[in-house]
Amino acid sequence: MRLFPREETFLPQFARGAEVILEAARVLDALAAAPVLDDERAVRIKQLEHQGDQIAHETFDLLNRTWITPIDREDIHVLVRNLDDVLDFIDAAAARIVLYRIASTTPELKKITSVIVQSAEAIQKAMALLSDLKHSKQILEACVEINRLENEADTVAQLAIGRLFAEARDPIEVMKWKEIYDFVEGATDRCEDVANTLEAIVIKST
Amino acid sequence: MRLFPREETFLPQFARGAEVILEAARVLDALAAAPVLDDERAVRIKQLEHQGDQIAHETFDLLNRTWITPIDREDIHVLVRNLDDVLDFIDAAAARIVLYRIASTTPELKKITSVIVQSAEAIQKAMALLSDLKHSKQILEACVEINRLENEADTVAQLAIGRLFAEARDPIEVMKWKEIYDFVEGATDRCEDVANTLEAIVIKST
Amino acid sequence: MRLFPREETFLPQFARGAEVILEAARVLDALAAAPVLDDERAVRIKQLEHQGDQIAHETFDLLNRTWITPIDREDIHVLVRNLDDVLDFIDAAAARIVLYRIASTTPELKKITSVIVQSAEAIQKAMALLSDLKHSKQILEACVEINRLENEADTVAQLAIGRLFAEARDPIEVMKWKEIYDFVEGATDRCEDVANTLEAIVIKST
Repeated sequence: MRLFPREETFLPQFARGAEVILEAARVLDALAAAPVLDDERAVRIKQLEHQGDQIAHETFDLLNRTWITPIDREDIHVLVRNLDDVLDFIDAAAARIVLYRIASTTPELKKITSVIVQSAEAIQKAMALLSDLKHSKQILEACVEINRLENEADTVAQLAIGRLFAEARDPIEVMKWKEIYDFVEGATDRCEDVANTLEAIVIKST
Repeated sequence: MRLFPREETFLPQFARGAEVILEAARVLDALAAAPVLDDERAVRIKQLEHQGDQIAHETFDLLNRTWITPIDREDIHVLVRNLDDVLDFIDAAAARIVLYRIASTTPELKKITSVIVQSAEAIQKAMALLSDLKHSKQILEACVEINRLENEADTVAQLAIGRLFAEARDPIEVMKWKEIYDFVEGATDRCEDVANTLEAIVIKST
Repeated sequence: MRLFPREETFLPQFARGAEVILEAARVLDALAAAPVLDDERAVRIKQLEHQGDQIAHETFDLLNRTWITPIDREDIHVLVRNLDDVLDFIDAAAARIVLYRIASTTPELKKITSVIVQSAEAIQKAMALLSDLKHSKQILEACVEINRLENEADTVAQLAIGRLFAEARDPIEVMKWKEIYDFVEGATDRCEDVANTLEAIVIKST
């Protein structure tokens, strides 16, 4: 029993979407590790975000021309949107780092962006497993792992924000960093949305 | 082939919903262009928001009494909620302008509220086209336009926020304006949600 | 006509979920009434949030093993997620009160947390009525009540935030309280999401 018995064309689209997310996550992780003024890595992430938009539109066009879809049309639609949202948050975090002229980092920021990379790897893995129903257990395990990573990022973000409010002197600096932490933590929330949608697709198909 | 073969009653509801959004968007645009202390235009927008709630409840009642719906019941539900969310953000932006006693404007705020008006016009156009499947291409074009407008608002909001953090002296002022920019930009995000739902409805129906 | 003709197993899960939310809401309400430094009630709420996660996972497992569900699988999935979101916001509010070392309260905070308790009671009531289609009118009334409570919380939060920005001297304090108000008000928004999902389930089933 295969999840995608007739149409194999959607799987490569999801795989490409996951790949773009993983690359963006890695660039953000490098940016967060050592940001410089006017960091060009944010420009690269914006390009990847446009690539993601392109993939999303191609997938919708494909959906429009496909009569029988391997999984519900609505689920394909939601999944494409979820993948897009992950990229949006990664892009927003990178854009804020440049916009706010951040040229230093914190251990917590580095930790959270590394969690985003791990979540993106789990998404890629789950997408690759999606072709075959007998992998449903492993897909659900990847979803559990993405949920666990979100909790981890949440804990780190809370510590970071507590420290920020307790130690920082300049309110404007507090606002800037608070928003950056919110966006990177938000990226792991959006990865969790992808996991929840995958979970729902697998549950419906089994 | 018509999208609404049997029941024409939902279309007028959506048209009324879109009209209320467009009026609220225009009042917000006027308010943003020249806000005064205790601006009464926010009261008008709050009235429109209640009107939107009323239309939403009528539509749900109608749904409750209708056995065969032209499009999936769930999609009607989601679309009504999406329209409601647009109004909520327009109302929140207007309410914040009054609450924070804002009595001046910025070029960026005016630009974004004018983008909200354009998005509301595109929503109204798409809703009017919804009666007929042969319009699906034009509906999808309106959705693409709404997505483009959201990107435009996003770019302007980022510039505005960058300038705000770089130039403003008073942290409290920065907080106030940051939130107003977030709400007006959020209104264009919610318009994009409407577009995405419409896109999904059209894709399912073709 | 019963909404859950064959499988009664999901109803007890929803009832347990609603019960955990109500307990968390009551602990938050007590915490908000008289917060102390390093308040242990936030730890209790975190435990309840983990209990909620546990219930959610059990429900998904159950869904995975059930071939014929009383309501659409997707709706069960969305409802479980919605209940989880309410707990997340209650937990986030409590965590912020501790994280920001808040040791005083405001009339508005107490008012909003008491509204959360009322919303949680209405959710519990609606869940208990879900077993029988002839209760659909009462379920919809509970949903209307939850919507009304959200509007009430929203009004109080706006007043609170207006006062905060007008009166507070320390921008860092403004930021802290602003976020706490946003999270408690957000908890009532998430209760409204539960109401909207219940409304959609009832509408589809009648």
